Amino acid sequence: MSASYAIGIDIGGTKVLGGLVDEGGRIVHRARRDTPDRSKSPRVVEDTIVSVVDELRAHAADPGGHVSGEVSAVGIGAAGFVGADMATVVFAPHLSWRNEPLRDALTHRVGLPIVVDNDANAAAWAEWRFGAARGETHLVMITLGTGIGGGLLIDGALHRGKFGIAAEFGHMQVVPDGHRCECGNRGCWEQYASGNALVREARSMIAAQSPVAADLAVRAQEAGGLTGPLITEAAKAGDPTARELLAEVGHWLGVGIANIAAALDPGRFVIGGGVSAAGELLIEPARDTFRRKLTGRGYRPEALVVAAALGNDAGLIGAADLARSTTR
Amino acid sequence: MSASYAIGIDIGGTKVLGGLVDEGGRIVHRARRDTPDRSKSPRVVEDTIVSVVDELRAHAADPGGHVSGEVSAVGIGAAGFVGADMATVVFAPHLSWRNEPLRDALTHRVGLPIVVDNDANAAAWAEWRFGAARGETHLVMITLGTGIGGGLLIDGALHRGKFGIAAEFGHMQVVPDGHRCECGNRGCWEQYASGNALVREARSMIAAQSPVAADLAVRAQEAGGLTGPLITEAAKAGDPTARELLAEVGHWLGVGIANIAAALDPGRFVIGGGVSAAGELLIEPARDTFRRKLTGRGYRPEALVVAAALGNDAGLIGAADLARSTTR
Repeated sequence: MSASYAIGIDIGGTKVLGGLVDEGGRIVHRARRDTPDRSKSPRVVEDTIVSVVDELRAHAADPGGHVSGEVSAVGIGAAGFVGADMATVVFAPHLSWRNEPLRDALTHRVGLPIVVDNDANAAAWAEWRFGAARGETHLVMITLGTGIGGGLLIDGALHRGKFGIAAEFGHMQVVPDGHRCECGNRGCWEQYASGNALVREARSMIAAQSPVAADLAVRAQEAGGLTGPLITEAAKAGDPTARELLAEVGHWLGVGIANIAAALDPGRFVIGGGVSAAGELLIEPARDTFRRKLTGRGYRPEALVVAAALGNDAGLIGAADLARSTTR
Repeated sequence: MSASYAIGIDIGGTKVLGGLVDEGGRIVHRARRDTPDRSKSPRVVEDTIVSVVDELRAHAADPGGHVSGEVSAVGIGAAGFVGADMATVVFAPHLSWRNEPLRDALTHRVGLPIVVDNDANAAAWAEWRFGAARGETHLVMITLGTGIGGGLLIDGALHRGKFGIAAEFGHMQVVPDGHRCECGNRGCWEQYASGNALVREARSMIAAQSPVAADLAVRAQEAGGLTGPLITEAAKAGDPTARELLAEVGHWLGVGIANIAAALDPGRFVIGGGVSAAGELLIEPARDTFRRKLTGRGYRPEALVVAAALGNDAGLIGAADLARSTTR
């Protein structure tokens, strides 16, 4: 029997994840590339996408393979502002796209129906369909990676706003005259609650030669560099400074979700993206701050704050499933 | 011929406005009271509402009056968190209500169908039906009075969130460790962009005996006190300090609406409430900051920022019309 697949591709600030996804949201085969540097032309990112699609299709087309089947559509979740047409990347702070007609540029190269959406919208869709938000009528998805992605799903429909650019929560200003953001502004939430923020703060502690960061400095030296996953690993191993750094990111996560709760009053926040691999070391401090900052606290029902169930796969699973259900 | 009316009541932090509203959204008769001090029991606010309803009904019932007609329903817009049941005031920072079953408490005293909603939701509804947002599919209403009220109307439906408390934009934190808010938190947006903020800043300038505030101090003394409307009047008369104070509130208004645009991407912001009487003296600085702070500026379509068309009447007109259309 031939299976029916959709291909999902998640384009983040640092990596491109692809997957062959079945109707139950399971990834039966994967492909992965580094995201081309943003100094490169949009064409280079397109080439990367095409190469991932080709690899996954070849795998599905292999009649001797254990996942042999038909690919019906390609869904692309991109870390950028995708227009309401679900075809154009209007602006991508971490990539080289400005009003990039991504869907049309790829359609003739790929020869399959293509749907483009924001990567965090795709992740929200996946968590609602297959993950930590099944049955939730008012969902806010927060993905913590290089920056912050957001998705908003109300009564089973993604809310994209008038121009397609809703749920860009990472660019809400939380600190007047704060850190400069890649979007051009200052004090954006993603400068305080993201993988970049985690690494920046760790780096500044190490640069200050603080004795409490000595163990982390050794780890970074041994690993050949300081990264978010390395800090998370240190925190899980009990390093108190790494834990403090994650708790600080968690605190800012809580500030932001309290703001979003004031605006949107969701029933559930799902926290995903690479940084969410830290689990409760990140989410428990976020919940603490959220409860303290939530307006009307004690006088109102409160949203749940839970970890994503699909981890870093949510974006590609959601992109595939959105493509499948949109182009069906 | 007997006309068909609904009664609308807008309960703000300082005053209770009532009106007999016809099907075209016109107010044919008005009633007005001061809002009872929040140290008073919820019952005192209820008595005020009943007295306004009685006055307006008596007017409609007068067969010799020029507005003689039937009253079909009462809509109450309250400056507080109204539950998703549209019956209970969950929390009202500026009033004495905590989980107050307002609709049921009033129903037997009034003998008409009653609908309760947040005052800014009511204002959003009115502006969409009869005012500055007709035809807009993605509307955010901001009312600047004692604090900030918010309403969110997507595709012709008010978005109330999971628990009924969405669009409480005024309690999004814009300044870490900022001014203490009546909601218990610090740094809430309404501490920077509201009538209270305007008066607080003017008062501190006068208290500092700044020479630039001398004219404003004289005006306040002559009027027997410093109020928002007095500052607006001075600004309109050309007082540079009053203009600066309004521009500062406008700046913070722009910061907040840029944040809301990042989260919700509406097509239009409508600015209403008492402070919006300052018109372009407030809204032009807000637009300037909004454009500077909007994420992705220059690479995306931008929401319009416009003054409310119904001014301070939006809340009561919307409450009446919501009651009419909900109980029909």
